[in-house]
Amino acid sequence: MRNRQVVLRQRPVDRLDVSHFAVVDGAIGRPGEGEVLVRTVLLSIDPANRAWMQGRTYRDRLEDGQVMEGFVLGEVIDANGTDIAAGTIVECQGKWQEFAVLPRALVRPIEVLGPLEQHLGLLGINGVTAYFGLYRVGCVAAGETVVVSAAAGATGHLVGQLAKLRGARVVGIAGSEAKNAVLVEKLGFDAAVDHHRDDLLASLRAACPNGVDVYFDNVGGPVLDTALRVMNPHGRIVCCGVVSQYDTSSPAPGPRGVPGLLITKRLRMEGFLAPDFLDEWPEATRKLADLADSGEIVGLVTMTDGLESAPEALVGLLAGKNVGKAVVRVAPDPVRRSPEP
Amino acid sequence: MRNRQVVLRQRPVDRLDVSHFAVVDGAIGRPGEGEVLVRTVLLSIDPANRAWMQGRTYRDRLEDGQVMEGFVLGEVIDANGTDIAAGTIVECQGKWQEFAVLPRALVRPIEVLGPLEQHLGLLGINGVTAYFGLYRVGCVAAGETVVVSAAAGATGHLVGQLAKLRGARVVGIAGSEAKNAVLVEKLGFDAAVDHHRDDLLASLRAACPNGVDVYFDNVGGPVLDTALRVMNPHGRIVCCGVVSQYDTSSPAPGPRGVPGLLITKRLRMEGFLAPDFLDEWPEATRKLADLADSGEIVGLVTMTDGLESAPEALVGLLAGKNVGKAVVRVAPDPVRRSPEP
Repeated sequence: MRNRQVVLRQRPVDRLDVSHFAVVDGAIGRPGEGEVLVRTVLLSIDPANRAWMQGRTYRDRLEDGQVMEGFVLGEVIDANGTDIAAGTIVECQGKWQEFAVLPRALVRPIEVLGPLEQHLGLLGINGVTAYFGLYRVGCVAAGETVVVSAAAGATGHLVGQLAKLRGARVVGIAGSEAKNAVLVEKLGFDAAVDHHRDDLLASLRAACPNGVDVYFDNVGGPVLDTALRVMNPHGRIVCCGVVSQYDTSSPAPGPRGVPGLLITKRLRMEGFLAPDFLDEWPEATRKLADLADSGEIVGLVTMTDGLESAPEALVGLLAGKNVGKAVVRVAPDPVRRSPEP
Repeated sequence: MRNRQVVLRQRPVDRLDVSHFAVVDGAIGRPGEGEVLVRTVLLSIDPANRAWMQGRTYRDRLEDGQVMEGFVLGEVIDANGTDIAAGTIVECQGKWQEFAVLPRALVRPIEVLGPLEQHLGLLGINGVTAYFGLYRVGCVAAGETVVVSAAAGATGHLVGQLAKLRGARVVGIAGSEAKNAVLVEKLGFDAAVDHHRDDLLASLRAACPNGVDVYFDNVGGPVLDTALRVMNPHGRIVCCGVVSQYDTSSPAPGPRGVPGLLITKRLRMEGFLAPDFLDEWPEATRKLADLADSGEIVGLVTMTDGLESAPEALVGLLAGKNVGKAVVRVAPDPVRRSPEP
């Protein structure tokens, strides 16, 4: 049985395109002592995938010829005598391939609380990222104004909905009128502005008549530069991502308002990674699942089919084509037993 | 009786020099209802004086032809029937002149806890700035490493001493070997590095073998850019001043590590102004006075004599010539009654 894999043929110098990848046939391998065999069901497509090619993140750089890495949801098909049951749905930092032999210690069984693809977004990393970033780092309060960039993205569209639930006024920044229509009409954002507009500053000022108390930044670059200018005194800037700077070899300079505007407006700017709150993930995820069950929050997903579509899905994500979480389906959902009555 | 005044003849386009000022003779004026007449005793010379000429701070820009503004310590010489006693020492946001008629509401009597010039530094704005910035914004803990820039400046030299008292390792960044010698030999800093050195990054790394937990930034610009690279995960950057950017019309771009390094290292970067903690100033100032009395903290002062020396004192400050607080003496200390036994 073959194991199709997507290899990073050559690291991009500037913009990533599908020619940087190749699909190859690899071997499946046999699990050794303490290892399990996992079939990939879904791949999570994330801006971070591109950042790893630049070599300046929290992990080692991806190199030419490596099988592409990413977050994976899969099914254990050979438990190999470990403490895990065959058929268990697991998540792991994995690779873009159909099968993987992995140390048992590196796969984490998940408690299935909704459709599997939601476990890559709302019930996965993006949900806890939005939750802890907004509530714990941004400390948003009712009546405040929250602006979120990449607002139609996997994390952004959840941030806006969580801020609404907290009683804030919410303004999204996204890259097209179509996305902005989704934010306002489908997700309840109070307003949305297009960052491709000539005058983002004027648009933001018009959309935020009381200024901005919390800016949840997923993009960095010129949008962050502009957002600093509309912040209210004692505002908070939650630094979550720098997606504007991932797909380039010539990063923008830092925002001009740092540190000057931080001082005159007494702003707090704080970076975080969701794993900083790992102990509290189960509780947060259950709350998010309850909100999804009651229809108070919606996890949007852009799904594409087939392992070989993963490069295009990532290139599309970087070009801003997705709405919500980008997911690639590699295999059909496993047939799961119904829960006990 | 004449009232000598220093006027901002022309706002500087780039570097400030003494030719931008003129000394003129003005009138003294008579206090009206609710006003008092104050004789200037000491002028506080601060980087902020230069920033006000740029028009992008927490106050209106200084304009051509205005009497130069600054923080002043003076003596009430005509109380004009207000609730204040003649002879009272007061502080106020005043002007570079010998006498001022001021609304009673804008002058604040001070409780004299030490030499008057200390009330412009250690027992004044710089003391509380260092105290609240380091303890409340930086949240420094024993055993951590603190780096402070403009370390021989009015605030910086106090930050370093307060950090030592809290049990931290302290490294100063200043602009000359002579200043650095003062920091290490006289004030107990563990090390000091010269920001004019070719390789500030390597010098900082050598001086901070355990990385940096708190960076107290008084300068912004390239030094901040470098400091971001030596920060430990979960470090705090206290944004107090941007003195590298005050004396120029072409500000440096923002630091490249913002927001990227803030995220990967989960850094918090926060601006503050000491008046945010105004309610707690009396308590903090008493603690600082006690530390000064016991010799545990030293407030250094660079004093120059005569109102007409103020422009040169400010130009010198911006060129990094002072050590500690820069003060101009405009009149001799008033003769004060001894405290009651």
